Amino acid sequence: MRIVSYRTGNETRIGIRTEDGLRDAGAFPASAEAFGSLAETGLQPGTRVPEGWTPAIPLIPGARIICIGLNYAEHAKEGGREPPDYPGLFLRVDTSLAANGEAVPMPAVSDRMDWEAELLVVIGKGGRAIPEAQALDHVFGYGVFNDISIRDYQRKGAQWTPGKNFDRTGVTGEEIVTPDELPKGATGLGIRAILNGQVMQDANTDMMIFPVAKAISIISEFMTLKPGDLIATGTPSGVGYARTPPVFMKPGDEIVIEIDRVGRIASKIEG
Amino acid sequence: MRIVSYRTGNETRIGIRTEDGLRDAGAFPASAEAFGSLAETGLQPGTRVPEGWTPAIPLIPGARIICIGLNYAEHAKEGGREPPDYPGLFLRVDTSLAANGEAVPMPAVSDRMDWEAELLVVIGKGGRAIPEAQALDHVFGYGVFNDISIRDYQRKGAQWTPGKNFDRTGVTGEEIVTPDELPKGATGLGIRAILNGQVMQDANTDMMIFPVAKAISIISEFMTLKPGDLIATGTPSGVGYARTPPVFMKPGDEIVIEIDRVGRIASKIEG
Repeated sequence: MRIVSYRTGNETRIGIRTEDGLRDAGAFPASAEAFGSLAETGLQPGTRVPEGWTPAIPLIPGARIICIGLNYAEHAKEGGREPPDYPGLFLRVDTSLAANGEAVPMPAVSDRMDWEAELLVVIGKGGRAIPEAQALDHVFGYGVFNDISIRDYQRKGAQWTPGKNFDRTGVTGEEIVTPDELPKGATGLGIRAILNGQVMQDANTDMMIFPVAKAISIISEFMTLKPGDLIATGTPSGVGYARTPPVFMKPGDEIVIEIDRVGRIASKIEG
Repeated sequence: MRIVSYRTGNETRIGIRTEDGLRDAGAFPASAEAFGSLAETGLQPGTRVPEGWTPAIPLIPGARIICIGLNYAEHAKEGGREPPDYPGLFLRVDTSLAANGEAVPMPAVSDRMDWEAELLVVIGKGGRAIPEAQALDHVFGYGVFNDISIRDYQRKGAQWTPGKNFDRTGVTGEEIVTPDELPKGATGLGIRAILNGQVMQDANTDMMIFPVAKAISIISEFMTLKPGDLIATGTPSGVGYARTPPVFMKPGDEIVIEIDRVGRIASKIEG
């Protein structure tokens, strides 16, 4: 099933993509609890959604955004690092997210804006200390994420937080694909970043150092996961800052992220 | 004014501490918008709150918890670092907070639990790119925070996130003191951590490298602050891991954080 968060008028709702278009499936869940129930009971397609809807960010109120750095060996290497034995984990705030298709504002204070193609995991069932062997039972679905990073602010202090939390820089696809439609753990899927029509990242989700089940197990070792929590699983090699010469995005650029069988998101950089 | 978040029965409410006890001031704000209005119009003391209330975490739904690392030169030095020219900023999630008086669970996976006495800032008026000269106008009040850190998990990966986000480790005082009751920017206040009756940290808030106004300006450069957002302003020297020999907390320990004229919080470590 392909579940879509969408806006129509002033309302955010969820729908199901079917062969004859988007069908409404109710109001957007207002809490982790509401989303948890929904994830358990399942969604039913209702009436057809008329054209004119826009993609919404699939962020349940109160959900957290946990991001993995350095999850692909080639990306660690291009940044001058060894592949780690524990992931670099950071958090994003809600205001750092943008919807698919929404303009991404170029920061006034930096010209070092970089793309990062990532597979997104949506948690359906919460938990703490989730064993790796059971972790995939906690996944509601998979989506596409662009972890746009402001590189000078990422390295300004001891932590990456500033460079990862500029307003509306984390582009979050509106479409979440349930696990039954994909290979187990969403492995073996081509993942690409395409800047103004040119392929910049071209990798496969089976190159992750910490695959989805392992990542859920590692994160839930320290914090209790809730339904609706998002996990961005890190980016492969081919980011802009590590290229020779470096390539950064500028106003007018279009950046597309594609993951085979999951989806495609596109953003314009706005000056 | 001293504003108290409290629980009674199954309800979270806010009150005002007066000379003859706590007076109710309404339901706990349900959103940043609701808190922003309240911060603007001010609070009125109502009926007296009967004994039996318990401290609540003053976290408005949707508020973010932004924490500064390395904000006191002596603490940077004890960790083997130069005083930075940009703060190490990290985020905490809601589940990582604990109320004053609530037991703090010792992680099953670590014995490296350390205290960090910190001044907490509550944002009353949101904004982006707030100039330092106007930043204190955005402060609703000040509180006491214990940024309890799991040191081995803080250094396990490239980022501090895991060590700072174990469930119920960020002890957040229920009492928020409005700026009119304190020196400008809450400077010049003694700040202490006391472990089982022994003073372990003993410093002053005027030793901050990035004082409150500067910190708000730095944070709002990359993200839009909202009413209710919490900023933990970093800890002075005297933490456990940097002592010779190192001291870590263990089940049964009592850790107290005091800030002159702001308040005092106490936690028991639970095995």
